[in-house]
Amino acid sequence: MPEPDNTFAAANGLLHRRVFLKTGVAAVGLLTAQVAAGTRDPWMKEPGAALGESGAPSDHESHVVRTGIGSQPGTTGSGASRTPLEFLDGIVTPSRLHFERHHSGIPDIDPARHRLVIHGLVDRPLSFDVESLDRYPRASRIQFLECSGNSGSATAPVAAADATCSSIHGLVSGSEWGGVPLAVLLDEAGVKPKASWVVAGGADAAMMSRSIPLAKIMDDAIVALYQNGERLRPANGYPMRLFLPGWEGNASVKWLRSLTVTDQPAMTKDETSKYSDLMHDGKAKLFTFPMGVKSVITSPSPGLAMAGSGVYQISGIAWSGAGSVRRVEVSADGGNTWAESALDAHVLPKSLTRFRSAWRWDGKPAVIMSRAIDETGAVQPTRVAALAGLANFYHHNGMQAWQVGADGGVTNVYV
Amino acid sequence: MPEPDNTFAAANGLLHRRVFLKTGVAAVGLLTAQVAAGTRDPWMKEPGAALGESGAPSDHESHVVRTGIGSQPGTTGSGASRTPLEFLDGIVTPSRLHFERHHSGIPDIDPARHRLVIHGLVDRPLSFDVESLDRYPRASRIQFLECSGNSGSATAPVAAADATCSSIHGLVSGSEWGGVPLAVLLDEAGVKPKASWVVAGGADAAMMSRSIPLAKIMDDAIVALYQNGERLRPANGYPMRLFLPGWEGNASVKWLRSLTVTDQPAMTKDETSKYSDLMHDGKAKLFTFPMGVKSVITSPSPGLAMAGSGVYQISGIAWSGAGSVRRVEVSADGGNTWAESALDAHVLPKSLTRFRSAWRWDGKPAVIMSRAIDETGAVQPTRVAALAGLANFYHHNGMQAWQVGADGGVTNVYV
Repeated sequence: MPEPDNTFAAANGLLHRRVFLKTGVAAVGLLTAQVAAGTRDPWMKEPGAALGESGAPSDHESHVVRTGIGSQPGTTGSGASRTPLEFLDGIVTPSRLHFERHHSGIPDIDPARHRLVIHGLVDRPLSFDVESLDRYPRASRIQFLECSGNSGSATAPVAAADATCSSIHGLVSGSEWGGVPLAVLLDEAGVKPKASWVVAGGADAAMMSRSIPLAKIMDDAIVALYQNGERLRPANGYPMRLFLPGWEGNASVKWLRSLTVTDQPAMTKDETSKYSDLMHDGKAKLFTFPMGVKSVITSPSPGLAMAGSGVYQISGIAWSGAGSVRRVEVSADGGNTWAESALDAHVLPKSLTRFRSAWRWDGKPAVIMSRAIDETGAVQPTRVAALAGLANFYHHNGMQAWQVGADGGVTNVYV
Repeated sequence: MPEPDNTFAAANGLLHRRVFLKTGVAAVGLLTAQVAAGTRDPWMKEPGAALGESGAPSDHESHVVRTGIGSQPGTTGSGASRTPLEFLDGIVTPSRLHFERHHSGIPDIDPARHRLVIHGLVDRPLSFDVESLDRYPRASRIQFLECSGNSGSATAPVAAADATCSSIHGLVSGSEWGGVPLAVLLDEAGVKPKASWVVAGGADAAMMSRSIPLAKIMDDAIVALYQNGERLRPANGYPMRLFLPGWEGNASVKWLRSLTVTDQPAMTKDETSKYSDLMHDGKAKLFTFPMGVKSVITSPSPGLAMAGSGVYQISGIAWSGAGSVRRVEVSADGGNTWAESALDAHVLPKSLTRFRSAWRWDGKPAVIMSRAIDETGAVQPTRVAALAGLANFYHHNGMQAWQVGADGGVTNVYV
C-alpha cells in the first residue's frame, strides 16, 4: 500500500516517529505460537552459572572493547584508546570502556599515600587525603568528557575509507562523576583577591599540568572521587582527578596532586607545545577550553551493516560544552532536508544526549548525517565550515556523514 | 569559637549545608606548601601501565564487591548477591555490582538462537530476535531495580548486630536501562479487546513466569537490551529482559522469551508460592507490584568507622516506585528532630536519588536515620508502622536507624 505523503518528516525515507508501527521487521506468522513457546533451548535444561562477587559481560559480546589503541613509539602507556560508540546505547559509558588518553601511562597510586595540596595565593595552604575529602559535601552529575583531539582525523583532506565511528569520534564518553565541589575547598583555603588562575598538576610521570581560570574552578569544577557509582578507575585518575564539566578533557587533570592558585597561567608544556589551536595565519589560540556543540550517528555506522531495505532506527549522541542539547536534526539525503530527531528522556546539561529517528531505507545509496543545536542556539557546523577557522585538528565539531551503500555497507564520507 | 544557634538545622549536630565550610577536616598548616609539592611519589618516577581494551578497578578497591552471596542448599546459582551500597556514591550502580537474584542460575544464552515470542490474545503472533529488536525505536532511562525481598531481614524481631547496609538493603541498584517500549511491539501484534494481562516467561531453567497487568505493559514497560550503555550482562538477563520501572524486581523477568497476552493472571508458581504478601489474618495479597517510598543512609554505616568527633557528610539513597523523590529528611537524634537533606542534581522518576547532609558529630553516641517523601506525598513509614500491615518480609520499606558509638563504630539498631 503506498504511503501518504505526510508519512515522511524529511526526504529519502525519514519517518515521523509515530509511523514506526507496522514495520514488518518482526517475523510475522509463526507456524503456531505454541510451537515456538514449546521449544526448550539447551540453556533451559540445566541450572545456569553461579552467583558472583563481580559480574562480567557475555562472552558473546567480546568484540565490545576499546578500539584504536595507539601509543607513541617505544611506549605502551602514552597514547589513546577509544570508546566503541557504535556498540553502545544510552548516555552512560561503562567505565571499562571509557576512552583513555595518557601521557606517561597509568600510575599505580596508593591512596593512603596520595595527597592533594592547595597552595599559592591562599590564606591557608591545605592538604587533603582521600579520607578527609570523603567528609566533605559531594555532588554527582552525569556529564561527558571529550578529548580536544576527538574527531581530529575528520580534518584530513581525504575521508579515510576504513574509518569507524569510534576511530573518528571515540574520544568522548559519558559518566556520572561524583566528587567535592572545588569552590568548597578553595573557600576553606581562602583565595587571595589578586588570584585569577589555578594550575592543576597530576601525579603521573608526565606531571601533566594545566592552567585553569579561577572562575571555572569556582563555578562547577569538582575533585572527582567516583565514576559511575564506584571509585575512579586507575585509567581515569584514581584516587582523584580534576573534573571540568564541558571543557576539553586534557584540562581535567587526572591523578590530581596539586592546585596552585596564581595570578596568571603557568604556560606549561602541556598548554603551549600542544592543546593549543593553530590558526591559518600561523598564530595559535591558547586556552580554548569549552567543547563545541556536536553530534554523531552511532547506528547505522561503519561495521554495522544494514540487512536490506526496510525500517531502521537511526541513533546517535549529541553534546555541548555550553549546556544542554536543545534539538538534533537528521538528514538522509546528504544534508538537503532535515527532520527533527526524538531525544531520550534525560536531556542533561553538559551530558551526552541520545537521539533517535525512524528511517525507511529504500535500499538505494544514501548519505545520513546529524546536526545538534544547543541551549545557547549554537548550531553544529558543517565539516567545511568547522575547518574554515582552524588549521589543526583540535576542537573539530563538524558534521559527520555516513554513506550507506546499496549493499547495506556503511562508510565514512565527506559531503 | 561557639557556633550561633542558627547554625543547626536539627538537633544533635545536623548542619545547614552552608555551614560546611571551615570544618578543619583538612590538614591545615603544612610545613611549607613547597615541600609537599616538591615531593615525588614512586609512581611519578617511571612510566605507568599500558592502555587497554577494557579497564578494571584499582587493586586498592578489591574489597568493593557484591556481598552476602547466598544460594540454596545444593545449588550455586539459586539465591542472591548484594550491591555494596556503603562503598558506592551517586545514582548509577556499576553493572558488575548490580545485585543478583536468580532461581536457577545464569543461563549462557546464544543471542543468535534466542527469540522473544508475543502470542495469545493478539491479532498477529510475532517473533523477535535481537537483530530485529535493534531496528525498533528504543528509549533509555535511569531507574532503580529492587527485589521485593530487599530489607526483609529488618523485619526480624531482634536487630542483627553484625548487619551492614548492603546485607540488609543491598537488593536495590540503579542503572540506565535501554530497550524497546513494549507498547510499540504489542501495537504491532494487535492486542484483542478482551486482553487484560500479559504472562512473561524467562529462558532460565527455572522458567520464571509472572503475570503483569496489560496496563503496566502499555504504560512504561520495555524489553531491555542495554544496561549502563552496553548490552545487558548475563546476570541481568542477556540478551533481553522485561523491565517494569518502579515494580518489584522479580516481575521484570530476565532472559525474556515469551509474552502471552491473556484475560487473567496465570497464577504461576512464582506468584503464588512466593512473591505474595502474607497478612496478619492469614490471607495473602497477590500482585502488589509497586515498591514503596524508601531511603537508607549508606554513609556512615556499619563498616565505615568514624574517625573522631568533627564534621562528616551523611549520604544515602532514596527511591519510590510511584515516581520522583520530593524530599529526604535526616535525623541525628533517633527520629525526634529532622533536617531537610540536600538532593543531588538529578532527581529522576523511579530512580535512585542521592541525598547528603552535613553533620557535626560531638563524639557521643547518636542514632542517625533518614526518611523519604515521594511526589505523591507518600512518607516512608517507621519500621514499626511498616510491620503493622504485613506478616512477611516482602516490600518492607521501614526507616533504617544506625547507632553511632562513642568509639566511632556504626551498628544496626531498631528504634
